[in-house]
Amino acid sequence: MLLEHINSPKKLKRLPLQALDTLAAEIREFLVESIADTGGHLASNLGVVELTLALHRVFNSPKDKIIWDVGHQSYIHKIITGRKGRFHTLRKLDGLSGFPKPGESEHDAFGTGHSSTSISAALGLAMARDLRQNDGVCTCNKTNDKRNHCTKSEKVIAVIGDGSMTGGLAYEGLNNAGRSDTDIIVILNDNQMSICENVGAISRHLNALRTGPVYLGAKQGVHSMLDKLPVVGPHLSGGIESVKASLKYLLLHGVLFEEMGFRYFGPVDGHNIPALLKMLKGVKKIRGPVLVHVLTKKGKGYQSAERSPTRFHGVGAFDVDTGRPTGGSALPSYTDVFSNALMRHAATDDKIVAVTAAMGSGTGLTPFEKQYPKRFFDVGIAEGHAVTFAAGLAKGGLKPVVTMYASFLQRAYDNVIHDVALQNLPVIFAVDRAGIVGEDGETHQGIYDLAYLCHIPNMTVLAPKDGPELEAMLSYALAHNGPVAIRYPRDTAVNYTGTPPPITHGQSETIRKGRGMAIVSVGTMMDTARDVAAILSNNGHDPSIYNARFIKPLDTQLASRLTKYDAVYVLEDATRIGGYGSQLLDALTAQAGPMPHFNILAFPDTFIEAGSRTELFKRHNLDAQSIAEFITPK
Amino acid sequence: MLLEHINSPKKLKRLPLQALDTLAAEIREFLVESIADTGGHLASNLGVVELTLALHRVFNSPKDKIIWDVGHQSYIHKIITGRKGRFHTLRKLDGLSGFPKPGESEHDAFGTGHSSTSISAALGLAMARDLRQNDGVCTCNKTNDKRNHCTKSEKVIAVIGDGSMTGGLAYEGLNNAGRSDTDIIVILNDNQMSICENVGAISRHLNALRTGPVYLGAKQGVHSMLDKLPVVGPHLSGGIESVKASLKYLLLHGVLFEEMGFRYFGPVDGHNIPALLKMLKGVKKIRGPVLVHVLTKKGKGYQSAERSPTRFHGVGAFDVDTGRPTGGSALPSYTDVFSNALMRHAATDDKIVAVTAAMGSGTGLTPFEKQYPKRFFDVGIAEGHAVTFAAGLAKGGLKPVVTMYASFLQRAYDNVIHDVALQNLPVIFAVDRAGIVGEDGETHQGIYDLAYLCHIPNMTVLAPKDGPELEAMLSYALAHNGPVAIRYPRDTAVNYTGTPPPITHGQSETIRKGRGMAIVSVGTMMDTARDVAAILSNNGHDPSIYNARFIKPLDTQLASRLTKYDAVYVLEDATRIGGYGSQLLDALTAQAGPMPHFNILAFPDTFIEAGSRTELFKRHNLDAQSIAEFITPK
Repeated sequence: MLLEHINSPKKLKRLPLQALDTLAAEIREFLVESIADTGGHLASNLGVVELTLALHRVFNSPKDKIIWDVGHQSYIHKIITGRKGRFHTLRKLDGLSGFPKPGESEHDAFGTGHSSTSISAALGLAMARDLRQNDGVCTCNKTNDKRNHCTKSEKVIAVIGDGSMTGGLAYEGLNNAGRSDTDIIVILNDNQMSICENVGAISRHLNALRTGPVYLGAKQGVHSMLDKLPVVGPHLSGGIESVKASLKYLLLHGVLFEEMGFRYFGPVDGHNIPALLKMLKGVKKIRGPVLVHVLTKKGKGYQSAERSPTRFHGVGAFDVDTGRPTGGSALPSYTDVFSNALMRHAATDDKIVAVTAAMGSGTGLTPFEKQYPKRFFDVGIAEGHAVTFAAGLAKGGLKPVVTMYASFLQRAYDNVIHDVALQNLPVIFAVDRAGIVGEDGETHQGIYDLAYLCHIPNMTVLAPKDGPELEAMLSYALAHNGPVAIRYPRDTAVNYTGTPPPITHGQSETIRKGRGMAIVSVGTMMDTARDVAAILSNNGHDPSIYNARFIKPLDTQLASRLTKYDAVYVLEDATRIGGYGSQLLDALTAQAGPMPHFNILAFPDTFIEAGSRTELFKRHNLDAQSIAEFITPK
Repeated sequence: MLLEHINSPKKLKRLPLQALDTLAAEIREFLVESIADTGGHLASNLGVVELTLALHRVFNSPKDKIIWDVGHQSYIHKIITGRKGRFHTLRKLDGLSGFPKPGESEHDAFGTGHSSTSISAALGLAMARDLRQNDGVCTCNKTNDKRNHCTKSEKVIAVIGDGSMTGGLAYEGLNNAGRSDTDIIVILNDNQMSICENVGAISRHLNALRTGPVYLGAKQGVHSMLDKLPVVGPHLSGGIESVKASLKYLLLHGVLFEEMGFRYFGPVDGHNIPALLKMLKGVKKIRGPVLVHVLTKKGKGYQSAERSPTRFHGVGAFDVDTGRPTGGSALPSYTDVFSNALMRHAATDDKIVAVTAAMGSGTGLTPFEKQYPKRFFDVGIAEGHAVTFAAGLAKGGLKPVVTMYASFLQRAYDNVIHDVALQNLPVIFAVDRAGIVGEDGETHQGIYDLAYLCHIPNMTVLAPKDGPELEAMLSYALAHNGPVAIRYPRDTAVNYTGTPPPITHGQSETIRKGRGMAIVSVGTMMDTARDVAAILSNNGHDPSIYNARFIKPLDTQLASRLTKYDAVYVLEDATRIGGYGSQLLDALTAQAGPMPHFNILAFPDTFIEAGSRTELFKRHNLDAQSIAEFITPK
């Protein structure tokens, strides 16, 4: 096994060239077996094995900075940089992160997790390098010769997928990098799909080129363009011609990047190590902004993943031979409950349309897309557009339902304010993966949604306690004439009550009448609230339980009712600052009458690490046992 | 005067063609005189007089929807649609809005104010139209002939400037519109500058084309491309040739939009009414996504504005003859104080760099740009990129200061979380125009910043009470190893104390020691707090005054100290939900000891209208008199 000995880029560089394919095969085997055990992102990593090896052969990390856009494709990078031994802890509590994390290794040049940030971040690193050099910080001797000087100094490389290119932030980054004249290399990892079927005019165009006839008429022009490219131009043209349709790429797609100020190279076969090495060595010497177009195949080398890259994008544990999930719950998730409820409404109300940003499958829209393709809009990784577009749909008389993960709706915060709420448009936000999301860790925890939604005027924010209540809230939202967000976690849906009492605007629900102490539960914290009440009851207490239902507008009657208790405990699966508890406290303070002892039990003001929901609730003292002990210390 | 009789698009359509130039001249005269009195956006409106007239001649508002990107160039649209008589109230309390506002007129198809939203919103309206037609809502008889049918139904037109095109949201919109096959018209109003000098590779490229030689070699290809354009292709080519460099536009710039799925037409002279009418009538018949490239000149027709379009972008009242401001304050603003302080630090610390998103002049960076051009980055209207780029700069060892208006930093909320705070990078946010911004109204009020920043882990959020404290806080922030936001209003800087006591992490400042009641003031509400205290003192009370200084992290010692008061009053120039008061209340509740009567005096949970700061504070009972009466009712 070669892989056993490769624990640094230096050791990778010492391998003979002909051993790299063997190494790639060993890495694939390791990835499939390891992720089959732990779960994780498989298809995207299998697609960049050769590219990662080539990058670490040609460039010198950590001096050279490699920034992985989104970052779930950084597993091979992690393996090469000495973290193979920790892969059994991948995405587990206190384990290896599923994303690049500077705190984890000096080779992780910049933290990622959300899409389309890499070019902007890389440009920042590149400009900082240039300015440090001007200030004499660089130790290179050739300070008089800026051109030579710069080739001696660190390189900055952004590796970005074609899916991430649908995000406006990537365009802003390209546009600014293109005019900068700084040395920056963007690797376009064109894997021919993002999480869902790739969308957008640009990707359609790429597809047309991939399958269309070579644009022969322009051959001469392309060659003369190539001849003018500095340093590596002439000897690159051979490699380029080996890829079908490359001329039209250069003429049209290349022109797009060239127009933005980049020198365009490619496309190059991303699974051909010698071709990759040749290309990267070539562009390493080029001045200014460079874009290298690399064609890869998601899931490469593992049949199950090649066939179903969407399913193997992010997976739980699975059987290596069959590709089938091992373990996992057969019970419906909140996503399933939402999905089914939406389908029922959609069947009778053809004004309902669905909008998502490359999260159709994750948010349960697959059946909707199949049944109502004309009413389904996957806009690509473009959350801002998704929300403003939905505002337009609503203004045009439809009832758009925007399905998005809580951590990604963050990217459309201003669109929610400016385009939806300000015009009080009836857009429904189905905020999936709200609260603790688990294994994806810091970048994906959906715990800020209450804080970033509740202070927006005209918004209604709902949190269901169980599956049937989620259904009832969707019905409520569809009938409401204004924006509504319904937030629910990535979890199995429980069902306490069958049909819940009707949802009334701004009213909470009483679950258990007791005295002395009251527990106010936000959404699916009800599970914990009931367990806490059971423990307390066994110890002679008689707690009331309320289900908040409306995070906004707040139930002021509830606030009034709470004044009769000695102590109030708010449980929320969200960050403490700006959440439901702080609003309730404000309302309670405005009441006449005595002030109960008020306690907010929510997530603290730190980024919450990766781990299972159960583990993270326990660690942050939000499990039933810890809460019961907090309420009645021994 | 023709203008007196034009109070609807219908009346405009009845005018003879040859009268339109006279009307345009009358409109310019009216605009200059009216805005000289009220202040407002002048240069951008003078640039679109002919374009607006042509749009309302060719299209049928309100059936056809015209969406004005950003919207400050909608004055002529407002004049034509019957609102000329209200122009003396422009941007005043309860007056005419400076932006399109559906509540104001049925001709305002979609509210705008922030940049780059128009294509996304227009696509939503267009898709809603298409789906409504499928459902038989359209009253057109020719339901069997979809092509004819659609030309009978409403048109959707987005009018977007080249500056707004630097925003990623516009790219997301274009990308999705381009693949939609729906009928949508995007008018690219290329006025050759955004608020500041236009930036970005695309605009550099446009400039090169404008001034470069005609690309003769490609002439044949372009003509054959033109010949293939449906319906209006052949007779458009004549008009196109009248504009210099048009062929290279078509070949290169046109290719960019064509690649995205648009049919590209233009460029056309935006001050030539017959050419505009011909072009718009032509594209009105075209199927699918169309982009019309219109060249205009900001400030057109008023010499002072043509010479200094940046100064006449948004102006206060001015003298028509000289173009000089009338009235206005000679006192330094908070922006000036920040600007001077930054210059002092920059002189001795060459790691300080400045980043802004087309707000360089507004945020006081003009001297910095002049003195340190290499350390100054205006990224265009691309707030998300600005923040992620700054994160890269910080990671690269520099000290970036991001200057942005509070209402626009909203657009980089996720970048603040994901790229800056999560990595605890030392990026300073100089949050200008925080709190009530005044005449720009709902879309520009900077009252959400505390709510969207304070729940982000690792953030430090500061608010200075006066000018010297702003300087001290900037020094503090530059020495702090983590992200810091300093928020200050669009107002004249006061100076209470000369050099303030040192800024200590997480500590408030005691301004006045009293008893019984305490006023806790956020930032520049200190002015009001002191006035309130003076009124109360005159009535026999002895209020304490505290200056919060650290909105986050909160001063827990202050919370402890507050328990000794009977009543606490928090004054903040921000929205109540999620602000400083609710955090302080939470901290106070955690203290042992009696609970004072706690009151948050802040802006209510509604969008705050336009008006002067003084007027809006008074209307929302946040002036000293109202607060004093609230505290001690008569």
